[in-house]
Amino acid sequence: VLLKEVLFFPTTVTCVEHLFASRRDLPFSCPCSLPHGLETSFTKLLRHLLSAKSSLDLCVFAFSNQDLSHTVLLLQSRGVTVRILTDKDYMLISGSQIGTLRRAGICVRHEMGAVHMHHKFAVVDGRLLITGSLNWTLTAIQSNRENILVTEEPDLVRPFVREFQQLWEANNPA
Amino acid sequence: VLLKEVLFFPTTVTCVEHLFASRRDLPFSCPCSLPHGLETSFTKLLRHLLSAKSSLDLCVFAFSNQDLSHTVLLLQSRGVTVRILTDKDYMLISGSQIGTLRRAGICVRHEMGAVHMHHKFAVVDGRLLITGSLNWTLTAIQSNRENILVTEEPDLVRPFVREFQQLWEANNPA
Ligand SMILES: [Zn+2]
Ligand SMILES: [Zn+2]
Repeated sequence: VLLKEVLFFPTTVTCVEHLFASRRDLPFSCPCSLPHGLETSFTKLLRHLLSAKSSLDLCVFAFSNQDLSHTVLLLQSRGVTVRILTDKDYMLISGSQIGTLRRAGICVRHEMGAVHMHHKFAVVDGRLLITGSLNWTLTAIQSNRENILVTEEPDLVRPFVREFQQLWEANNPA
Repeated sequence: VLLKEVLFFPTTVTCVEHLFASRRDLPFSCPCSLPHGLETSFTKLLRHLLSAKSSLDLCVFAFSNQDLSHTVLLLQSRGVTVRILTDKDYMLISGSQIGTLRRAGICVRHEMGAVHMHHKFAVVDGRLLITGSLNWTLTAIQSNRENILVTEEPDLVRPFVREFQQLWEANNPA
């Protein structure tokens, strides 16, 4: 059965550190004051992203969330090929993680044509689509009414894979 | 077979007047200078909305597009029950269609709890889901990189129907 899931935000803020722990750190015990061991829309989103084995293609207007930045860097350290396409104006805003990710060696391109690159989608291993209203910011996750839809349905995944590839090539700065 | 479709924006600007013409106006001939008879992501979106027979539930952060406003008013005139849930800050912005729609008797509520009601989804006849990054503005349709996903898949439609119902009740001003 193909995965089909809808996640709504905002969510309760919980600790997500255990999701980043490596196998040898387990059992993992965290001293922070946030609630532990709760499954939320955000932990589910992180689990889907962390399931990447070979590639993560991310097309997102705003990216300032540190847990999501941590996730991307962890994937890269595991050998996953990460490509990020983002908005030219938002990436310069204070708090944006784009500079940090670029400096860490992640391949980032920004939309050079359209007024705004307003997409908010990710494709994991060319197989799993995550798309919706949610920007990768703290406000989106903790404060706004937002949705994401997660699906493996090929008829829905394929157009997003194609859109990413087209935008990636069209915005090659070289 | 259940409908599954992905539409990308921006689109070529074309005339959409024929979509609003009633049967007795056909064949419809329009004197405007825009291209006629082209199918675009925007005409497809309007067709999906205009297919509503009994209800349109719309949950959208920004609504300023006049063709979409025209669509909503036309549906209302056909006896379709329209409910709109929107963002409290954006609805007051100049160019917002929310005031016009309210004055025309459309039921509108705004999010009173969350920081922003950032959803951009519509459910037609409780059956067809339209969701994505696209706000109902001219910039979104004509200038930005945007996506919408259109599906009848019950596992995806049902959570959005439930979310709309919950937010509608939670934001009853009475
Ligand atoms: Zn903790
Ligand atoms: Zn015309």
